[in-house]
Amino acid sequence: MYYIGIDLGGTGIKGGIVSENGDIILKKETKTPVEKGYEGVIQSIINLIHELVSEKNIDTKDIKSIGVGIPGVANKEGMVYYAHNLFWKDVPLGEMLRQEFKGIPVYVENDATVACVAEYVCGAMKNKENGVMLTLGTGVGGGIIINGKVFSGSNGLGSEIGHMVVGENFYNCNCGNNGCLETFSSATAIIKYAKKLIEDENKDTLIMEKVQNDINKIDAKVIIDSAKEGDYIGNKAVDRLVKYLAIGITNIMNIIDPDVICIGGGLSKSGDFLLNKINKEIEKYLLFKDLKYGQIVIATLGNDAGIIGSAMLGK
Amino acid sequence: MYYIGIDLGGTGIKGGIVSENGDIILKKETKTPVEKGYEGVIQSIINLIHELVSEKNIDTKDIKSIGVGIPGVANKEGMVYYAHNLFWKDVPLGEMLRQEFKGIPVYVENDATVACVAEYVCGAMKNKENGVMLTLGTGVGGGIIINGKVFSGSNGLGSEIGHMVVGENFYNCNCGNNGCLETFSSATAIIKYAKKLIEDENKDTLIMEKVQNDINKIDAKVIIDSAKEGDYIGNKAVDRLVKYLAIGITNIMNIIDPDVICIGGGLSKSGDFLLNKINKEIEKYLLFKDLKYGQIVIATLGNDAGIIGSAMLGK
Repeated sequence: MYYIGIDLGGTGIKGGIVSENGDIILKKETKTPVEKGYEGVIQSIINLIHELVSEKNIDTKDIKSIGVGIPGVANKEGMVYYAHNLFWKDVPLGEMLRQEFKGIPVYVENDATVACVAEYVCGAMKNKENGVMLTLGTGVGGGIIINGKVFSGSNGLGSEIGHMVVGENFYNCNCGNNGCLETFSSATAIIKYAKKLIEDENKDTLIMEKVQNDINKIDAKVIIDSAKEGDYIGNKAVDRLVKYLAIGITNIMNIIDPDVICIGGGLSKSGDFLLNKINKEIEKYLLFKDLKYGQIVIATLGNDAGIIGSAMLGK
Repeated sequence: MYYIGIDLGGTGIKGGIVSENGDIILKKETKTPVEKGYEGVIQSIINLIHELVSEKNIDTKDIKSIGVGIPGVANKEGMVYYAHNLFWKDVPLGEMLRQEFKGIPVYVENDATVACVAEYVCGAMKNKENGVMLTLGTGVGGGIIINGKVFSGSNGLGSEIGHMVVGENFYNCNCGNNGCLETFSSATAIIKYAKKLIEDENKDTLIMEKVQNDINKIDAKVIIDSAKEGDYIGNKAVDRLVKYLAIGITNIMNIIDPDVICIGGGLSKSGDFLLNKINKEIEKYLLFKDLKYGQIVIATLGNDAGIIGSAMLGK
C-alpha cells in the first residue's frame, strides 16, 4: 500500500508517494495558485495527486490514505478554519478531496503537527511514545504526539505552542496578546530584537557589517552567524531567544513531560550551537533538578518532513 | 468489586471503600504520623485499609485496586520522588503496599491528578474525553485526562501546571523560578499581593477592617469577600489573580485544547464570582475568537474528591 502526502505552503505545493516506512518513492511540486482562491488551490492538489499516481503507474485503490499539511488550523473532518497565508477561512478541504478520491481516507493537519508526525515515524522522535515538536521559523509552530498518536485537542485547536504566553515582551503578537513564545523565539522575533538592540545600544556589531549597513537586510542567519563569531549584539539576541525558548520548553515538560522535544524549522539549522545553549539554559528552570526529563533533539528530516508527515497521518 | 481510595495529606489520612460508580460506601480517617517517618505513615495507611475491609466485612479478594493520592510526585510504580509536607524523598510507597496486599494492583498519583480523576468519573468533568483540573489552594495543582485516561507524562513529572511560567512576578516561586502560575493564582499568592498593595498604596480597605487591623490574619476568603463588597484593594488583588489564571488557562487551551477545564481547591469555593471573572477575562486572550473552546467549570466533589479519585485510579 502507498500513502499520499501533500505539503501545502503559501508559495508551493509539494506532493509525494510514501511507503509505510516513511520513505518517499516519488515526489513532485507545483506552485500554489493563491490568486485562484481555494477552489483553484484544491484543484492543483487534485491534479498533483493524479500526476503522482499516473507517473508511478499505480491504481487509486492501492492508496491507503491522503494527508495534507496546511499552514493553518483544521478540525478532524478537514474543515480548514483558517490559513492566513492562503486567505482561507472555513474551507472544506477534506470534504472536497474525499469527493474526488472516493473511498480513500483524507487527513488534514497543521504543518507543524505534520512535521511532528514525520519526525515521530522516521526522524528524531522515532519510536517515542510522547513527543512534542517545535518549529522555529517565521512563527513558532507546535505538534504533539501522545501515546503514539497525533494529539490536536478536542476541537483541533491544540498544539498552538507558539501562542503560549511565557513572559512580557516589548511588542504584541499578531494574535493580539503579549508575551507569546513566538514573539521571543521565532526568526521574526530575533530579527526584531536585534534591530531594537542596534538602534538602542549604538554599538559596533558584525551584524551590520554583514548586511553592508542595511538594517532591513538582517535575517536570523546573519544574527546567529555573528553570535557564533563572538559578536556582542548577536549573542545578546540569541541569548534572549534561548531564555524564553527554555522557559517554553520547561512549561511543556511541566505539563506534558514528553520523552522527547524536537526542534525544527529554519532556526534549527544552527544545530548544536542552539541545542547546547538550550540545554544549558533549561537546567536553571527544571522543577526537579535531580530527576530525568525528556531529551531535546534537533529535527532530522528537513524539507521532506511535510510530505512524509502528511502521508503518515494515515498510518 | 470494591475500590479502595486513600487521600494522604500532611495532617490526615482519609480512606474509603468506593463503588465502581464512584460512590463512597464507607470512609474512615486517621492522623498522619509524620514524625514516625515514612514507615510509620505507610503502616497507618495499611491499618486504615484493614479497618475499612474488616468493618465492611469484605474479603481482600473483593478489592479491585488500591489507589493513593499524595501531596507530591511519584512514578508509575508508585515510587514517591518527593512529598515535601511529609519530608519524603524516594519512598517506595507502591512497592510497600503491594507487599502487604499481594495481588491487588496499587496506584499512586499526585493529589491534584486524583481530584481530576474524581471529577472525571462522577463530577464536573463526567464523560469528557479530555479534561484538565486546576486546584487553587496553598499552591496550584494540576491534573490531566487525555482520551479518557490519566496523563502524567512519560516520567510521571507532567501536569505540574502550577509551575507553568506565565509572566513576571515581584517575588520568586518556591521552586526558584520567577513567574510560575502559582505565584499569581494561589491562595498564598493573593494574600502576598494584597499585603503588598496594602503596604504600597496606603488606602483604607475592608480587608484590614475584617482582620481587626492585624495584617497577618489576612486570608484568601477575607480578600475575596472584600472584593465582593466592592473594596478597591480586594478587587485589585482578585483581578490580578484572574488575569494570570486566564493566561494560564488560555495556554492550556492553546496546547491541550481540552473539552473542559475544572477549577477546584479552596479558592473554587467562591464559585460563580470567580468563574464569571475568569470567563470574561479569557475572552481577551483566546486565539480564535469565533471558534468554540472547552468549557470552564467549578469542581463539584469537594473534600471527598481525594478518596473517590484515588479509588478510581484503578478503574
